[in-house]
Amino acid sequence: MYCLLLKTRLHPGSREAFLDAMRVNAAASVRDEPGCLVFDVLQDRSDPLLIWLYEVYVDEAAFEAHMRTAHFLASRPLVEPLILAQDAIEADGLLFNPAR
Amino acid sequence: MYCLLLKTRLHPGSREAFLDAMRVNAAASVRDEPGCLVFDVLQDRSDPLLIWLYEVYVDEAAFEAHMRTAHFLASRPLVEPLILAQDAIEADGLLFNPAR
Repeated sequence: MYCLLLKTRLHPGSREAFLDAMRVNAAASVRDEPGCLVFDVLQDRSDPLLIWLYEVYVDEAAFEAHMRTAHFLASRPLVEPLILAQDAIEADGLLFNPAR
Repeated sequence: MYCLLLKTRLHPGSREAFLDAMRVNAAASVRDEPGCLVFDVLQDRSDPLLIWLYEVYVDEAAFEAHMRTAHFLASRPLVEPLILAQDAIEADGLLFNPAR
């Protein structure tokens, strides 16, 4: 499994618009993409403008397919102006509980 | 939901022993604790000695209960000598796909 942790720092005042866009994209990704198994959105307790995305794909090809979907492409112009910085941590899933 | 991301850097030579201990603790946590919903273990692609834990609890009380379980307590003496450094990122779950 190909996993992404995206540490996402938002511009001040952008949080609600970012979450509105992510709500649509994250739900559609798991609902409509057979290769997207998890898409969680977390609020870091240290900073209201710091959001973590946790995404699990069956493999890198599934992530590449994700980036070609209508819901992903629709979300980009909405969220890009809201993001101050985003660090991507790439990882391979070793243990999943519950099983995916 | 109370979420933890634990960035875990291991001592050289400790990876397999750490994963063996985590395999038991992570599986038991989701199987036996009604308040522990997710316990994933990820291998960071940048470094074989860098492991991420992603844990989701229904609330902080459930995490406190986790730390009193036999499986957690049994894992501590196994994993503590293997860990060089561990950073805990505390977060609140905003969106979960699939629903938990």
